[in-house]
Amino acid sequence: MIRTLAVVGTGLIGTSLALAAARQGVRVHLLDSDPCAVRTAAALGAGLPGPPPEPVDLAVIAVPPSLVATVLAQQQARGLARTYTDVASVKYEPERAVLARAPDPTRYIGGHPLAGRERSGPLAARVDLFQDRVWVLTPSRLTSRTALDRALSLIGLCGAVPLVMQSKAHDDAVALTSHVPHVVSSLMAARLGAGPPQAARLAGQGLRDVTRIAGGDSRLWSDILQANAGAVAGVLTDLQADLADLLTALRDLAGPADRRSAHSLAAVVDLLDRGISGLGELSTALPGRPAQLASVRVRIADRPGELSRLLAATAELGVGPEDAQVRPADGVRGDLTVRLAVPAAVSGPLLARVTAEGWEAGTEADGHPACVA
Amino acid sequence: MIRTLAVVGTGLIGTSLALAAARQGVRVHLLDSDPCAVRTAAALGAGLPGPPPEPVDLAVIAVPPSLVATVLAQQQARGLARTYTDVASVKYEPERAVLARAPDPTRYIGGHPLAGRERSGPLAARVDLFQDRVWVLTPSRLTSRTALDRALSLIGLCGAVPLVMQSKAHDDAVALTSHVPHVVSSLMAARLGAGPPQAARLAGQGLRDVTRIAGGDSRLWSDILQANAGAVAGVLTDLQADLADLLTALRDLAGPADRRSAHSLAAVVDLLDRGISGLGELSTALPGRPAQLASVRVRIADRPGELSRLLAATAELGVGPEDAQVRPADGVRGDLTVRLAVPAAVSGPLLARVTAEGWEAGTEADGHPACVA
Repeated sequence: MIRTLAVVGTGLIGTSLALAAARQGVRVHLLDSDPCAVRTAAALGAGLPGPPPEPVDLAVIAVPPSLVATVLAQQQARGLARTYTDVASVKYEPERAVLARAPDPTRYIGGHPLAGRERSGPLAARVDLFQDRVWVLTPSRLTSRTALDRALSLIGLCGAVPLVMQSKAHDDAVALTSHVPHVVSSLMAARLGAGPPQAARLAGQGLRDVTRIAGGDSRLWSDILQANAGAVAGVLTDLQADLADLLTALRDLAGPADRRSAHSLAAVVDLLDRGISGLGELSTALPGRPAQLASVRVRIADRPGELSRLLAATAELGVGPEDAQVRPADGVRGDLTVRLAVPAAVSGPLLARVTAEGWEAGTEADGHPACVA
Repeated sequence: MIRTLAVVGTGLIGTSLALAAARQGVRVHLLDSDPCAVRTAAALGAGLPGPPPEPVDLAVIAVPPSLVATVLAQQQARGLARTYTDVASVKYEPERAVLARAPDPTRYIGGHPLAGRERSGPLAARVDLFQDRVWVLTPSRLTSRTALDRALSLIGLCGAVPLVMQSKAHDDAVALTSHVPHVVSSLMAARLGAGPPQAARLAGQGLRDVTRIAGGDSRLWSDILQANAGAVAGVLTDLQADLADLLTALRDLAGPADRRSAHSLAAVVDLLDRGISGLGELSTALPGRPAQLASVRVRIADRPGELSRLLAATAELGVGPEDAQVRPADGVRGDLTVRLAVPAAVSGPLLARVTAEGWEAGTEADGHPACVA
């Protein structure tokens, strides 16, 4: 349970968690090397500017990874708080430095809320920034139970979901899921500066999505990449090997058709397919994914727009075209069978709905393959 | 003006434009090597299955780039239509092949609507897929005025925005804005297959955005990359050089602190900064971007939450935190000056609104730098 909180570093993350804690009735004290940042955060209602009169329950060190240990040691020497955590997106190096330099490492637990925005600074802060987001805690071998409990209280106040990991495992994971994606986004965005004049007019949502995170603060991100350089370089080295193979294949495919290796196109397809299965890894981790699917089969007559009418009727049950497969129906020529893959719980209501609309429907039995995937 | 249309290839793009044309009263005929795809498109209300009784005004060849010339030559020999276009996302190779093999190349104009989805097939089609999207036309040296006019009519029926370019210039541009981003997205997504177990739980929106387009059909995309292999390889070669430099820097930064080159961190910052300026290229091309900005200065007192109240008051004029900068006000200690950068047309109403709420405000005059960017 936290009654008083200090936030050292009133940037996006520090100010956002201060807003969340303050809204929950916690007395929050705001510190930053930039007095204007502190006053902006205070003017947003994130807390009181300046240090607390006596040690607070928990202090959050919200500074770049390379500064965590130094700032923590300074503040602990001053007796800012009884326990400490941080929010740096790299955890192993800061932990090592804290164990080596902090007056009392037992009062510290590493933390990393997985939330952020392209914009930085207190003005970008949002009280709900951490709502339902994963917030990793990385206790060291010395971390006290009290430090863990207070960090868990803060995570609760912010509406986030705690996940306890070892600092090294955390850094390997975020190298793959956060740091390398940022590098890849920057590598792509950096190319845009050298593009032909009309290129930007041909930019679509795909390019915007791939390059969105490249807009992040370059000093903060270079600090993050430096603090996790080993793990990031490891993933990038594998990516570099894939890129080299792909370039070999593309250069071959760019040459005269009669001299192309049959392997080149296969190499391109292979990379794209490995990307698609990689996305599978991601989606299986998505929360709320239906474990069990049921199939509902609907027969529709050969009338223009009949399929659209069916999909309109199923839409309000959250069943869309992405759940549908179409194949020729047995019997009457031209009729179609629409197979709808839905969460088991939905199949009953769906059956009721479509039969009520006059369509012949049932649950899927045979394994007849659909001809439209 | 188009009264009759034929679509050869009822996938996502072909079915979507057929839906748009049919809704505008055009008589649409649907053809595809897969009879089930045709019937699905017809069942969605995209048109009539099968070839037209007599030549249509315009036929759209909606097949992968490598098949455009072959399918066009076949259909033109059969007299399917009076004019032809295609929708392949690569234009130079198909044009070259059409000029070499089509019975009458004057009746053909290359086309590329910049719209798509990760999902493919007629079931993914949407009548508004091309609304307000750029649709590139690439007339060859032989293209007739009639072919150009009919293609422009189709673009109008789909609510898209025509952009005329040479096929080679188009291919260089989309290599940068579409094909390389897809490759980069796939390179990243391919890494996810080899990640540590808990990594997926640490996946955030950034990773999802970077890898979203990697979900596209790998056969279609390998065909696209093959057809534009030279231009894609060119951009990827520059990207590979940036990656190599970055890896050198990261490996150095991963080593012992006392042996690091001062240049390594600078190299990382440089890449990230070039990415940020690349994004600038993109955003300057965004439509509807306000050309002229005006600055409104508001003075707020040193009260907790005062800045939040101001931003709440300005929100309904579309002015948010991203438009604001904060600095200490002259005079009374603790007061803040909030500088709001807004489209010139908004400055008047904004001034009226904030003064009505009792704040002291005016238009920005001096060049005093803000201390919070």
